[in-house]
Amino acid sequence: MFDVVTMGRIGVDVYPLQIGVSLREVSSFGKYLGGSSTNVAVAAARYGRKVATITRTGRDPFGEFLHDALQGFGVDDRWVTPVDGLPTPVTFCEIFPPDDFPLYFYREPTAPDLRIAADELDYDAIARAKVFWATVTGLSEEPSRSATLAALRAARGITVLDLDYRPMFWDSREEARRWVQEALPYVNVAVGNLDEWETAVGSRDPRIAATTPLDLAVVKQGPKGVLARRGEEWAEVPPVPVEVVNGLGAGDAFGGALCHALLGDWPLERAMRFCNAAGALVASRLACADAMPTEDEVEGMLAHA
Amino acid sequence: MFDVVTMGRIGVDVYPLQIGVSLREVSSFGKYLGGSSTNVAVAAARYGRKVATITRTGRDPFGEFLHDALQGFGVDDRWVTPVDGLPTPVTFCEIFPPDDFPLYFYREPTAPDLRIAADELDYDAIARAKVFWATVTGLSEEPSRSATLAALRAARGITVLDLDYRPMFWDSREEARRWVQEALPYVNVAVGNLDEWETAVGSRDPRIAATTPLDLAVVKQGPKGVLARRGEEWAEVPPVPVEVVNGLGAGDAFGGALCHALLGDWPLERAMRFCNAAGALVASRLACADAMPTEDEVEGMLAHA
Repeated sequence: MFDVVTMGRIGVDVYPLQIGVSLREVSSFGKYLGGSSTNVAVAAARYGRKVATITRTGRDPFGEFLHDALQGFGVDDRWVTPVDGLPTPVTFCEIFPPDDFPLYFYREPTAPDLRIAADELDYDAIARAKVFWATVTGLSEEPSRSATLAALRAARGITVLDLDYRPMFWDSREEARRWVQEALPYVNVAVGNLDEWETAVGSRDPRIAATTPLDLAVVKQGPKGVLARRGEEWAEVPPVPVEVVNGLGAGDAFGGALCHALLGDWPLERAMRFCNAAGALVASRLACADAMPTEDEVEGMLAHA
Repeated sequence: MFDVVTMGRIGVDVYPLQIGVSLREVSSFGKYLGGSSTNVAVAAARYGRKVATITRTGRDPFGEFLHDALQGFGVDDRWVTPVDGLPTPVTFCEIFPPDDFPLYFYREPTAPDLRIAADELDYDAIARAKVFWATVTGLSEEPSRSATLAALRAARGITVLDLDYRPMFWDSREEARRWVQEALPYVNVAVGNLDEWETAVGSRDPRIAATTPLDLAVVKQGPKGVLARRGEEWAEVPPVPVEVVNGLGAGDAFGGALCHALLGDWPLERAMRFCNAAGALVASRLACADAMPTEDEVEGMLAHA
């Protein structure tokens, strides 16, 4: 039985080794494990949780690298399978601190992770996972959409939908909303920023978003901090001031910390402070998956904030 | 008026900074101008020729980089235009000397350079180019196929078809042959390796290939050297022994040298020796476009071979 099972995107992040330059000027790149739900798995594993991820790669050397990386981070890769005929996706980024981190996805004609099919899932393992984590990107295309919905319906633990909305993966915001609405009844927890909540429920008002009928709703408001509601309880925590190096991966660090806090049944405000600090720590670092903090590191940041 | 106008593929080569490791293990990458006909243009420009290339990029920072690189190499980029909605292609490679250099193309759903359209060509400039160079890859998809055929028909100088055949760009070898056969009547010169000649004319026999009705036929036989026929004249030159570092780009170096030799109306054997040495020089270097030699460097290699 796994503490956390995540399902969704994976790819190779080919990220510049220079900061503050465009892809026009950058001269060299590093190669990293990437993909939102995969990063969440890595982040949760850093807290000592038993974690697996469900995703698919190309049948190529980049796919093999992703297995190596998952194993290195202690994430079980038994449900990471190859798809013939599609390359493992790559993503380039530009790093313009503090707040501009454009992404350039190479996921055409489609991504292997959108070929996850409902009939290949281990529903028993998904049902027994203490936390099951899926993302809105997984709803963007068949067969992944049906598989994601089937997995959310099967999950019996704490079921989280990461509202992760990337316009380039959708025909329209309305189309995304349609499928988020389809998924939300099967979900206990939803987490997203204001733009993502607008996609999900049609409002950018954080308090309206947070009253969406869920056990726990988490609204990330950037410089205004985090607003969360669990039942009748509300928490609002300010951002942790850091010098941002690379904002990419901060949301996934928040997600991995949220899995950890949910598993520990932490008080709401403590949970949000911890998640916030984990996100801030990763934002202060160049890497994403490779930068996910341990519990001691997050607690250290909270003690000094 | 240009000495050389090439037409075809362009992209960003994201090549490992380590040799002899797969994409599974490589840790960092450099970024380079790439694409066969583009490399030929760069190689010809290194000999002091006035060169332009016809191709298309995405409207993105990688596309801007390609303009910077072309300008840096002295290749006129007036006919390099952006295509909306398609990313600039990237290509990864693995470098396993001496003879294994797998390529991983990210050119889906299609490449901007396959969107070159017949109605955007400057036919007057193509007609007046002393050497016009097109490639078989440009025939793989519309509208580039019609544009390439229209350009070959319009060219009035020395018209070269680079038999550049990449199976991943085609449904079948037969389909490629069909379009090469369509193009050959408009061509004075064709150049390719044994596999490419098989695609073009259905035979791997170098002497049969070389008797294809053309002013000049060049058959690259790898370790057996180069066989060429011009009219009734035959030349066969042995390979230049070098320690191969990266075989990628060697064929394009050969092509750029061929443009230079054709413009100088060199004797056949001297031309083939020069082209061969230019290719060998680039094979002995890690880079491709960045490694294209000057005339002095090639002559130096010939003097010492």
